[in-house]
Amino acid sequence: LETNALIHGLSTVEIQALTTKCLEARETAYCPYSLFRVGCAILLKSSSTIISGANVENASYPVGTCAERVAMATAVVQGHRLGSFKAIAVATDMDAFCSPCGMCRQFLREFCELDMPIFMHNASGAYEAKTMGELLPMSFGPDALPPRE
Amino acid sequence: LETNALIHGLSTVEIQALTTKCLEARETAYCPYSLFRVGCAILLKSSSTIISGANVENASYPVGTCAERVAMATAVVQGHRLGSFKAIAVATDMDAFCSPCGMCRQFLREFCELDMPIFMHNASGAYEAKTMGELLPMSFGPDALPPRE
Amino acid sequence: LETNALIHGLSTVEIQALTTKCLEARETAYCPYSLFRVGCAILLKSSSTIISGANVENASYPVGTCAERVAMATAVVQGHRLGSFKAIAVATDMDAFCSPCGMCRQFLREFCELDMPIFMHNASGAYEAKTMGELLPMSFGPDALPPRE
Amino acid sequence: LETNALIHGLSTVEIQALTTKCLEARETAYCPYSLFRVGCAILLKSSSTIISGANVENASYPVGTCAERVAMATAVVQGHRLGSFKAIAVATDMDAFCSPCGMCRQFLREFCELDMPIFMHNASGAYEAKTMGELLPMSFGPDALPPRE
Ligand SMILES: [Zn+2]
Ligand SMILES: [Zn+2]
Ligand SMILES: [Zn+2]
Ligand SMILES: [Zn+2]
Repeated sequence: LETNALIHGLSTVEIQALTTKCLEARETAYCPYSLFRVGCAILLKSSSTIISGANVENASYPVGTCAERVAMATAVVQGHRLGSFKAIAVATDMDAFCSPCGMCRQFLREFCELDMPIFMHNASGAYEAKTMGELLPMSFGPDALPPRE
Repeated sequence: LETNALIHGLSTVEIQALTTKCLEARETAYCPYSLFRVGCAILLKSSSTIISGANVENASYPVGTCAERVAMATAVVQGHRLGSFKAIAVATDMDAFCSPCGMCRQFLREFCELDMPIFMHNASGAYEAKTMGELLPMSFGPDALPPRE
Repeated sequence: LETNALIHGLSTVEIQALTTKCLEARETAYCPYSLFRVGCAILLKSSSTIISGANVENASYPVGTCAERVAMATAVVQGHRLGSFKAIAVATDMDAFCSPCGMCRQFLREFCELDMPIFMHNASGAYEAKTMGELLPMSFGPDALPPRE
Repeated sequence: LETNALIHGLSTVEIQALTTKCLEARETAYCPYSLFRVGCAILLKSSSTIISGANVENASYPVGTCAERVAMATAVVQGHRLGSFKAIAVATDMDAFCSPCGMCRQFLREFCELDMPIFMHNASGAYEAKTMGELLPMSFGPDALPPRE
């Protein structure tokens, strides 16, 4: 694990903090429809601050939102933008490693560099890490659109 | 204005705080695609705390999110639920009074009582107020669904 | 019922056709997560053609879509636009009258006149009708945005 | 190109039909906000039928939908499900090869086998092909969720 961590440029302490925070964030989920709690934690480059979120569901299922988007939107309205983020971590209550849905990958893509790692945890806190670019290959972001005049 | 405010059970001071906060929240928007900044502020019943948010757009337009959902999701992951909210305020840079889109009305409906007021501001800080139930009549919320076993 | 229908400018035959079609459309739903089937039928002004749709859910709940948006998107890519629609009908398997979620009201608002009726059915085919403007008061549509140059 | 096509199990004729249809589908887009037309075409396994769609935007940007979801939802309400689809094609007006956004990749994932090819075209009709699994690695679909009782 440590080797993997060093590849992505995080210290063991940083990864442990992310793991703890995303598991804790799960507790804050509102998911009466899926009963599927998800937590997300985002580590800034500029400090050891971690911003977290959880899924917030709705009686009209498509209107609900995921943990990753809640956490990242919170970070963005605090002023963080592309270039601000060191790593993201997600966790569920499943034995399988949790991965962000495609919609969240697209939402994160707007603000995350392609080599930024995403640590996908299982219920017991073990993780697998992939980069933003590995999880959403051939993606498009802010650079792809013609600028608005 | 004061009369209107009393109808909805807020003091002038509370409304002024909401107005200030939703106008300020606009500044935190990420909206390079629409250039349409929106701010939202939510007042708790339990204290004078105001939780705010702004729109966060995406190169894939449907993947972005609105100010109201960012603010409310932040409140929900902090532990606030149906019964916690005293009022919501929204503001844009338009001369017209800003109203939440239908998706946000549905998102808010999950957590807001039908008589909770929503203060819709224009660019200069004047507002018009309607209740949750007036903005989304004949709506459905958590009570409408068969409980999950 | 007939009186109500005449108010909204539809004949009894047209309403019966809408009722039949939205109940039938329910059968085409893909909803393994909510088990909540919804059907939608849209009547054109230009002919007696009815375009229908149903909900299509996703393992990531927010990624799924509703019956109303499936039906209306189908109509739009067939070339129909604001001014083309005479009425919309929706149905579920519930005893209560089914109403569109806020997100669908906003989606429909882009293409429907404010006095266009929406017939909300219950499981047995009875209905209640409201206009687009009644279901999404103080809404904004294409006219509200500054034109893109 | 032919070799690539054979790898994915499509004949040259089938690919040409997909290319033609997704370029044509672009014409049906409703996109006054982005001015970014996208077309999508889906080839069934069971016949040479191609089902198509285009993006349908909304004044509230997050409420709009993409070409891929319009086309696939149309296919699903016609009764097609996981196992029915041979290939998907998308096209825009850009010189770059068009790829589905993350939200659409997740929507398609519900119904497409991981080895199903997606042909991503540029404005002039050239394409690059990747499989569903390549575009959304480590994804989750219907099999990942605990069954609803
Ligand atoms: Zn997600
Ligand atoms: Zn909104
Ligand atoms: Zn809906
Ligand atoms: Zn898309």
